[in-house]
Amino acid sequence: MDRANTVRNRAQRYGTTDSKQVKTTMYRSKTCGELRISNAGEQVTLAGWVQRSRKMGGMTFIDLRDRYGITQLVFNEEQDAALCAQANKLGREYVLQVKGTVSERYAKNDKMPTGDIEILVSELNVLNASLTPPFTIEEHTDGGDDLRMKYRYLDIRRENVRANLELRHKFCIAVRNFLDSKGFLEIETPVLIGSTPEGARDFIVPSRMNPGQFYALPQSPQTLKQLLMVAGIDRYFQIAKCFRDEDLRADRQPEFTQIDCEMSFVTQDDIISTFEEMAKYLFKEVRGYDLGEQPFLRLSWHEAMRRFGSDKPDMRFGMEFVELMDVLKGSGSFGVFNDAAYIGGICAEGCAHYTRKQLDQLTDFVKSPQIGAKGLVYARVGEDGSVKSSVDKFYTPEVLSQLRDTMQAKPGDLILILSGADAMKTRKQLCELRLEMGQRLGLRDKNKFSLLWVVDFPMFEWSEEEGRLLAMHHPFTAPRPQDIPMLDTDPASVLADAYDMVCNGVEVGGGSIRIHDAELQAKIFKVLGFTPERAQEQFGFLMNAFKYGAPPHGGLAYGLDRWVSLFAGLDSIRDCIAFPKNNSGRDVMLDAPSAVDPKQLDELKISLAADNE
Amino acid sequence: MDRANTVRNRAQRYGTTDSKQVKTTMYRSKTCGELRISNAGEQVTLAGWVQRSRKMGGMTFIDLRDRYGITQLVFNEEQDAALCAQANKLGREYVLQVKGTVSERYAKNDKMPTGDIEILVSELNVLNASLTPPFTIEEHTDGGDDLRMKYRYLDIRRENVRANLELRHKFCIAVRNFLDSKGFLEIETPVLIGSTPEGARDFIVPSRMNPGQFYALPQSPQTLKQLLMVAGIDRYFQIAKCFRDEDLRADRQPEFTQIDCEMSFVTQDDIISTFEEMAKYLFKEVRGYDLGEQPFLRLSWHEAMRRFGSDKPDMRFGMEFVELMDVLKGSGSFGVFNDAAYIGGICAEGCAHYTRKQLDQLTDFVKSPQIGAKGLVYARVGEDGSVKSSVDKFYTPEVLSQLRDTMQAKPGDLILILSGADAMKTRKQLCELRLEMGQRLGLRDKNKFSLLWVVDFPMFEWSEEEGRLLAMHHPFTAPRPQDIPMLDTDPASVLADAYDMVCNGVEVGGGSIRIHDAELQAKIFKVLGFTPERAQEQFGFLMNAFKYGAPPHGGLAYGLDRWVSLFAGLDSIRDCIAFPKNNSGRDVMLDAPSAVDPKQLDELKISLAADNE
Repeated sequence: MDRANTVRNRAQRYGTTDSKQVKTTMYRSKTCGELRISNAGEQVTLAGWVQRSRKMGGMTFIDLRDRYGITQLVFNEEQDAALCAQANKLGREYVLQVKGTVSERYAKNDKMPTGDIEILVSELNVLNASLTPPFTIEEHTDGGDDLRMKYRYLDIRRENVRANLELRHKFCIAVRNFLDSKGFLEIETPVLIGSTPEGARDFIVPSRMNPGQFYALPQSPQTLKQLLMVAGIDRYFQIAKCFRDEDLRADRQPEFTQIDCEMSFVTQDDIISTFEEMAKYLFKEVRGYDLGEQPFLRLSWHEAMRRFGSDKPDMRFGMEFVELMDVLKGSGSFGVFNDAAYIGGICAEGCAHYTRKQLDQLTDFVKSPQIGAKGLVYARVGEDGSVKSSVDKFYTPEVLSQLRDTMQAKPGDLILILSGADAMKTRKQLCELRLEMGQRLGLRDKNKFSLLWVVDFPMFEWSEEEGRLLAMHHPFTAPRPQDIPMLDTDPASVLADAYDMVCNGVEVGGGSIRIHDAELQAKIFKVLGFTPERAQEQFGFLMNAFKYGAPPHGGLAYGLDRWVSLFAGLDSIRDCIAFPKNNSGRDVMLDAPSAVDPKQLDELKISLAADNE
Repeated sequence: MDRANTVRNRAQRYGTTDSKQVKTTMYRSKTCGELRISNAGEQVTLAGWVQRSRKMGGMTFIDLRDRYGITQLVFNEEQDAALCAQANKLGREYVLQVKGTVSERYAKNDKMPTGDIEILVSELNVLNASLTPPFTIEEHTDGGDDLRMKYRYLDIRRENVRANLELRHKFCIAVRNFLDSKGFLEIETPVLIGSTPEGARDFIVPSRMNPGQFYALPQSPQTLKQLLMVAGIDRYFQIAKCFRDEDLRADRQPEFTQIDCEMSFVTQDDIISTFEEMAKYLFKEVRGYDLGEQPFLRLSWHEAMRRFGSDKPDMRFGMEFVELMDVLKGSGSFGVFNDAAYIGGICAEGCAHYTRKQLDQLTDFVKSPQIGAKGLVYARVGEDGSVKSSVDKFYTPEVLSQLRDTMQAKPGDLILILSGADAMKTRKQLCELRLEMGQRLGLRDKNKFSLLWVVDFPMFEWSEEEGRLLAMHHPFTAPRPQDIPMLDTDPASVLADAYDMVCNGVEVGGGSIRIHDAELQAKIFKVLGFTPERAQEQFGFLMNAFKYGAPPHGGLAYGLDRWVSLFAGLDSIRDCIAFPKNNSGRDVMLDAPSAVDPKQLDELKISLAADNE
C-alpha cells in the first residue's frame, strides 16, 4: 500500500462521527444516530435532548437528539398512560434517558438515517430540565447573531454549527498526520514572549514577578520557528494560536489559528511541492474534492496585478483585464481617458442585455466609498457586432470596433471599463468589479475550488505615512538571489523569494525563503530604516542566532480559520470558531474582557490611566 | 484488522525520524542518517553541521550532523589538496553542503547506524559559517543550565534534547489519533477569556478596544469545556496551553500544556475505562512498555493516605506503612510515642546492616525543614530475630518482638518509625522517608511504570488562612451521589466523584464528574462561602447555561509536560519544552518579559505604578 493511500484509508477508518460502538456509556447503549431497521427488536437505552414533540391521538412522538443524530421516541397512552402523561410534560431541550424497544416505523422518513425505526419507550428518566431556549435549535434558526453568540452553547447544538467544528477537527487531524508522515515535528512555542513593535500591535501581559515589564502574545511564531531551524529541527510545524490587537474588520479575530510550517535546506520549489501535495491531500480527504494531478498555476505578483488587479485572484472564472491605453487614450475626445494613467476593461459574456437599471447599479457599486472609482464606462456588443457605448460621442465607430476586437468581445457581450490616474488603484477597483460580475453571473461557485501560487512579490512597499519602505511580508523574507545587488541601487524594485497560496480569491497561506545570513539581514534592516542599535534591540536574539550556523530555510503559514471556512462554504471565519469574539473584541457569552479586582492591578504594579477610573 | 492494531500499525508506519525518502530537497539528496553499506558507490549530496573534524596524515575527517544522524566525510590531500585545505579551515557548527561518493569504511564504527560508510567528498559548499559555540554540542555538554537556556537554539542541536521534542511530538500525534478514534472532537477554546479570582492567580491582558478592562489567560479550559458539554459536543478534547501566575517552584512553568478531555452521559467508570485504555495505548505505542491487560488498581484517597501517606503513591515498590499505635503507645515509657496522635513504621528489607552514619543521615533527612519531623526511631532485626532499637530502654523485649511481628519484619530488616501529634503531617513525613528509602534501595527504576487511580477524594479542605472550606479540586466537582445529603450536615466529610491517575508517584492527570444541576452547583458555592451575588458574578455564565439542559458530564486533564517527562525519564518538565522559562518566569533567550514603549501603555490606558517608574 503506498503512503498516500494509507494516509487516506486511515482517515476513512478513523472518521469521527461515523465510528461506531465506542460511545456506549453507563447512560446509553446506543447513540441517537446509529439505529437502523436491522436493530429492530433490540432493547436499547438512549440519552439526549428533546428536539421536538407532538401528540397525535393517543400517541406522543418525541425526537431525541444527540451529537450523532435524531431518533424518534413513541409513547402510547393505551399501553402506559402514566408514562405518556410524563412525556407530554417534557419541554424542548429537556435532557432524557430512555429505555425501549427498537421498532419498525409505519411511516418511514427517508430524510433521516434513523428514519426507518422508532423506539417504543418503556422507561423515561429526566436527567435535566431546560428553560425554553431563546431561539430555535434548528439549521434555520430564528435567533439573530447577537443572541446566538450570547448563548453560543445553545447555538452549537444546531447541526450546521456543530458540523463546522467537526470539520475543523477532521481538518486538523489530517494536517497533522500528513505533516507527520513527511517528517515534520510539531513543536509548541511559547505564548508569553517579548514584544516586537514592527508589524501589527501586540497584546501585552504585565509580569508580576518582573514588575514594570511585560510579556507579549505572539502575532505568529515567526522568529521562534526560525530559531528552531537554527536549532537543527529541519522540519517544524505547529497549529498555533496567534494574537493581533488590531481594530477588527468584519472577518478578523483578535486571536486566530495558524498552521505554521518551516523547513531547512530548501528552495521555493521544495516548499511549493510539499505544500501543494498537502493541499491536494486535504481537499481530497477532508473535502472530497479532487484537485487533479497537475501542479498549481504560478503567477508572478506583477502578472496577477496586471491580469486580475489582485494578489489573490479568484481563478474560478476568466474575465481577465484587458489594458486599453493603446486603444482609448488619445484616440478620441473623452478627457477622462485622455488624462488616465490606466484604462482597463473586462468582458462580461452575454450581458449586453443588461438594463439601464442594472448598469446604474454597477456604476453605483464602483463609485461606492469602499471601491472609490469615479465612474464606469460600458459598451454593448450587438448581435450584429456593432458597439453601443456610454462614450459613443467621443469616439469614432472604428475606435469602438477596435475596442471590441481588443477585448475579444463577441456579439451579446458587455464591456465594462474603468480608468484612473493611479494604475494600481484603478486595477484594484476593476478587480472588485470583476468579482461583482463573477458573483452576479454565478461564476463563484462555493463547491468549485481553483488554487494557484502567487510568487515574486515586491520586497518592500512605500509607506506614505511613515515616509519609508516597509517589508511587504516581514523583515526576515529573503530577496530573490538575483535581486540582491539591487538592494543598494534600487531597493524598491527588489522582488522577494515569497509565495502565497490562493484559493477562490482568498489568501489561504503564504510564506517565503528566509534570510539566513546575518549580514544580509542587517542590510535589510538598514533598508527598512532601522538603526543598527534598534535592530539589535528588537531582533538581536535572532541575528545572534544566525551567527552560529543558520541553515538555509523557509516556510509558510496557513490561516486555519480561513481554510476551514472555505471548505465549509462559510462567509465568515467566525462560524468555524467555537467561541468567537465580536467586532469589539468581546466575548459576549463570557462577558470578557471585564474590570478586574484593584488588588490584581496592585500586585502587577500597574494602574488605570486617570480617565478610566 | 482490529481497531487497536490499526492504530498501532499506523503509528509504526508514520514514525517520524525513521520515515525515508521524503526529506530530499534541492540542497540534499539524502539525510545524514540514512546511508548504509548498500548505498556504497552512490553519488549523494548531503547538508548539515560540522560536529567535529580531525586530521590524520593526509586525510581530513569531518562528522556531518543533521536531525537524522551523523555521516563521516573524508577529504584526501593527495587527491584534492585545495579541497582538503578548504576542509581544514572549517570550524565546529559550520553549515555545509557536500557532494561525494558513498564508500565502505576501512574501520567501521558499529556504534552509529551510518558507521559502515563514509563520503569521499568531491565538492564542498559552505552554506554558513559559525562562531565557536559557547558550549559543546554533545549529549554530555560542558554548558551550564543558564548558558544552555540563553543559547537554547544551540542546546536543541544536542541529540538528547531534540529526542525529547521528538518524543513529545509523537506522544501528541498518538493522543490525537486515539481520541479521534473514540469520537472525541478537538475544539479550540479561546485564550483571551475572563478573569476568575477563584483558584490560582490569572495572567491578565489589557484590552485597548475596551479601556479599563482586561482579558485573562485561561488557567485551564474547565468552564469552556463544560459549556461544550452543554452544547452537545458529547466528547471533547484539546491539547491546550494553560497559564498560571504563581511563584514558580522548581518544576512549574507559567505556561504549560494540558490534555484536556470531557465526556457527556458518563459515570466515573466510563471515564476511567476510556482513559485507562488510552494510557495503555500510549505506553505501548510511544514508550514501548506493556502495562498488561489488568485494570489499574483503584485506591481511595483515605486508603492511599493510610498506606502510603500520599495521594500519589509510588507503587513501584511496597514498604507500606504499618500503624503502630496499638503496639507502641502506652506500652512503654517513651513519652514521644505516648503523646503521639500517630505512630507509623516502614520496613526496609535487608537494611539491618545500616551503619550509625547511614542512620544519622536518615535522621537528618526527616528532620530537614522540607520534611519537618522531630526525629527518627529505628529498630534492627538481627539474624536470630532479636530486635535492637533506638528506644530499647523504654520498652520490654516483648513489646519490641510484637513490633517486629506487626511490621512483619524478617531477620536482617530495618524498621523505621515516625510519630507526631498531627496524623496527616506525620504520614506525609513518613511518605518522604519511604520514597527516600525506595531511592536508596534502587526501587524507583525509571524504566518501570506502575499506574493506579486514586479516587474518593474529600470534596473540601479547610483553609486556616481563609477560615473557610476550599474546593479540593475545583468548585464544579460533583460530590458522590450518596454523600449529597451530608452537604447540609457534615460538608467536611463529603467525598467527591473525583479521580487522579498516578504513575510512579507523579499525578499524571485528574478529573471528576461535574455538577450538571444548577441547584446543586448553587449549594456547593454556598458551602464554599460564596454569596449568591458573587457566585453569579463569577460563574453566572456557567450556571445560566446549566438551566438549558446540561447533560451529566465529567472529564479529566493530563499534564502533557509531566507525562512526556515520565516517558523520557527526565527529572524536570523543562527538558521536554522547546523554550522554557526560568524560575523567575523569564525567557532568557528572548529576554522576555521586558519594558515596553510608553506609547503602548498610553494606548492601553494603563500606567506603571509610581515605584516602577
